[in-house]
Amino acid sequence: MNQGHTSCGQEVVEADRVAAFSDGVFAFAITLLVITIHVPGPAELGTKSLLIALGQQWPNYLSYVLSFIQVGQVWANHHTMFTYIKRVNHILIVFNTLLLMNIAVLPFPTALLALYIGTKDQYAAVMVYSGTLAVGGIFYNALWWYASHHSGLLDPKLDPQVVHRVTRRYLLGPILYTLACAFSLFWNGIVSLVLCIFLITFYLLPTVAGRITLLRRE
Amino acid sequence: MNQGHTSCGQEVVEADRVAAFSDGVFAFAITLLVITIHVPGPAELGTKSLLIALGQQWPNYLSYVLSFIQVGQVWANHHTMFTYIKRVNHILIVFNTLLLMNIAVLPFPTALLALYIGTKDQYAAVMVYSGTLAVGGIFYNALWWYASHHSGLLDPKLDPQVVHRVTRRYLLGPILYTLACAFSLFWNGIVSLVLCIFLITFYLLPTVAGRITLLRRE
Amino acid sequence: MNQGHTSCGQEVVEADRVAAFSDGVFAFAITLLVITIHVPGPAELGTKSLLIALGQQWPNYLSYVLSFIQVGQVWANHHTMFTYIKRVNHILIVFNTLLLMNIAVLPFPTALLALYIGTKDQYAAVMVYSGTLAVGGIFYNALWWYASHHSGLLDPKLDPQVVHRVTRRYLLGPILYTLACAFSLFWNGIVSLVLCIFLITFYLLPTVAGRITLLRRE
Amino acid sequence: MNQGHTSCGQEVVEADRVAAFSDGVFAFAITLLVITIHVPGPAELGTKSLLIALGQQWPNYLSYVLSFIQVGQVWANHHTMFTYIKRVNHILIVFNTLLLMNIAVLPFPTALLALYIGTKDQYAAVMVYSGTLAVGGIFYNALWWYASHHSGLLDPKLDPQVVHRVTRRYLLGPILYTLACAFSLFWNGIVSLVLCIFLITFYLLPTVAGRITLLRRE
Repeated sequence: MNQGHTSCGQEVVEADRVAAFSDGVFAFAITLLVITIHVPGPAELGTKSLLIALGQQWPNYLSYVLSFIQVGQVWANHHTMFTYIKRVNHILIVFNTLLLMNIAVLPFPTALLALYIGTKDQYAAVMVYSGTLAVGGIFYNALWWYASHHSGLLDPKLDPQVVHRVTRRYLLGPILYTLACAFSLFWNGIVSLVLCIFLITFYLLPTVAGRITLLRRE
Repeated sequence: MNQGHTSCGQEVVEADRVAAFSDGVFAFAITLLVITIHVPGPAELGTKSLLIALGQQWPNYLSYVLSFIQVGQVWANHHTMFTYIKRVNHILIVFNTLLLMNIAVLPFPTALLALYIGTKDQYAAVMVYSGTLAVGGIFYNALWWYASHHSGLLDPKLDPQVVHRVTRRYLLGPILYTLACAFSLFWNGIVSLVLCIFLITFYLLPTVAGRITLLRRE
Repeated sequence: MNQGHTSCGQEVVEADRVAAFSDGVFAFAITLLVITIHVPGPAELGTKSLLIALGQQWPNYLSYVLSFIQVGQVWANHHTMFTYIKRVNHILIVFNTLLLMNIAVLPFPTALLALYIGTKDQYAAVMVYSGTLAVGGIFYNALWWYASHHSGLLDPKLDPQVVHRVTRRYLLGPILYTLACAFSLFWNGIVSLVLCIFLITFYLLPTVAGRITLLRRE
Repeated sequence: MNQGHTSCGQEVVEADRVAAFSDGVFAFAITLLVITIHVPGPAELGTKSLLIALGQQWPNYLSYVLSFIQVGQVWANHHTMFTYIKRVNHILIVFNTLLLMNIAVLPFPTALLALYIGTKDQYAAVMVYSGTLAVGGIFYNALWWYASHHSGLLDPKLDPQVVHRVTRRYLLGPILYTLACAFSLFWNGIVSLVLCIFLITFYLLPTVAGRITLLRRE
């Protein structure tokens, strides 16, 4: 800013603004998830007490917690990715928009999961939910693949070995979620649901705490 | 900031804050679009399976995707425009507020489109939708026209030829959407809808990828 | 930032963060207003066409536009106020929180207005709406009064004459909206509604465009 | 930024971005609270006037005001905490995500409170509400405890005595809200509700205005 507008400085600012806009979408999408939790009205209770009614709608809380952690994780990863990206172009913005669309739509499959866990249509809700996560993973990898293969977008100081390692790890997500989506056809989706729960909570454990540190520019 | 508050520095900060506020409205409006997607409750399904019911509400997904890409595009353009604008005054803020009002209201025509595609009232929903996009295009051009014709608002380092080229390209949007709006009266709005889909997705293609780069201050 | 954390620099940062948080609340509140616009479902239409039904719910659009412009205006003023405020303390944050609460609650009276214009309860909806604007004006003045009377919160470079002039102009809002609120008891609130419309649109006119410029630190 | 990317500078930026993301969630959660206020439709009124109907739903306003002030307070404290934190790691982000999840879910217990105050299920609504605040307090303390006990996360210039004092004061919240939650079983939750109201408004009073000032880095 002080040294005038060199084209390089301009583009770093651009990448920062795309990151800031994305951060906004992540923050709103994660906060909007609460509208998927059903508020039972007095008329719905019948002879049940409110505590019982609240307890019976546990799928609401499970879906909420899963999606919240998921968006939080993708935000953290997306955020780290953008510390590597120093320039943006039109195609990268398109891939990023597709990823944000996937994140912003999450309240929809989350609400489906909340409504249909425990019903005969559970498999369909789980299929849509895990399918959305799988597609998100694919968009995420497309974004990173484009950024790392299109010359001049990544920070030139970034070690190619780090890029390689990051690429490999990012690939795991969409593969596992596609698997989960395929599994939703068996046992009314229960295996798929358990796999989603496992995948989402797995990344919260301290044993994978090295993850973000690893991603740091060394 | 370090060199004291010169009136110039102050106004650049002002323009940045207006841009940041606008970015917030864009990010929130794009995320709020998800509330237009209907979540089918178990009672609505009847004998249908959830997958069938979800499939049948494809107009919901189409409207969502169209509006999401549209807001994303307008954000990118608006954002680029504000890299050219170095000072803001009251009238510019008024034009900007009108544009933001148009963006923020988009969930309304989007929900109409989702509900009425395939019904006899399809033409009306398409008319409101394309009309909203046309009005948005007019506000957008008014904002740019005012910024580029009122002395001292644009970055003085900006090449007049670039300003001219940008002005010309911006004009295309409102003209085409007004046309789409007029077409909504024929064939129950189907031509208009196809035109909207074409216009919105067209800008995503790599062939127009030069667009944003072109807009860069050279 | 470069010169270490002097207590002064720290507090400027604090004031900036309170302003940024407030900007966020303004941006979300203004975008959330769209949920007050009713989306007529096919079942509601009966034999009416969608266009007629949309036309008949004009109070929805009027309320939306009024509230949108109002929040936009208060944001612009609030934003200018925070360019004068260089330090924040607990009491100032409390006054600011009260103002934000008033802004964030606006979708509620806006929805009431949309529902009750043209009914026998119109006066009550207008009373709540103008009353909310009046209370907002009071909170706004309390915030400014505290900031300008508590030693050390305003930018010391600010001309006392400017402070005085700003104080006087800010006072007009709550007085006029309190008047509008009182008038809601007569003629089923129609005078009050017209006064609100006049006050809100008045500030958009170019004749008062000097307003923001005047507020600039000279 | 000017001196190249030292690992220290990088991490300060990281902590700032986590703080900014959290600010976004706080700002959005506080603004979304308005959806918990019921808008009475004309059909619901029957022979009642709108003013009477609005007056009778006072629990809506009480819950809204309580939750708004609560989120505002936690935001201010969280914000101050992040002026002490200079580095973030994976575990700290996990604790922060848990706290944000608790803040973002608040519209749910707020809506319950609005619906069930004055009914036989009041105790359950108050239990869920105070329980949510208690859990939030626990997450908040866990976050601070981790930040202050894990070497290298806090600003090294921070006086250990200040850290100690802050730790002690933060502990009070979860203890009192857990107490309030336990009390909800007696007198249909009325004692618990009064305790919540007292605790939330208490921190607004000027007598505790020293609070934020105390937390400033001296």
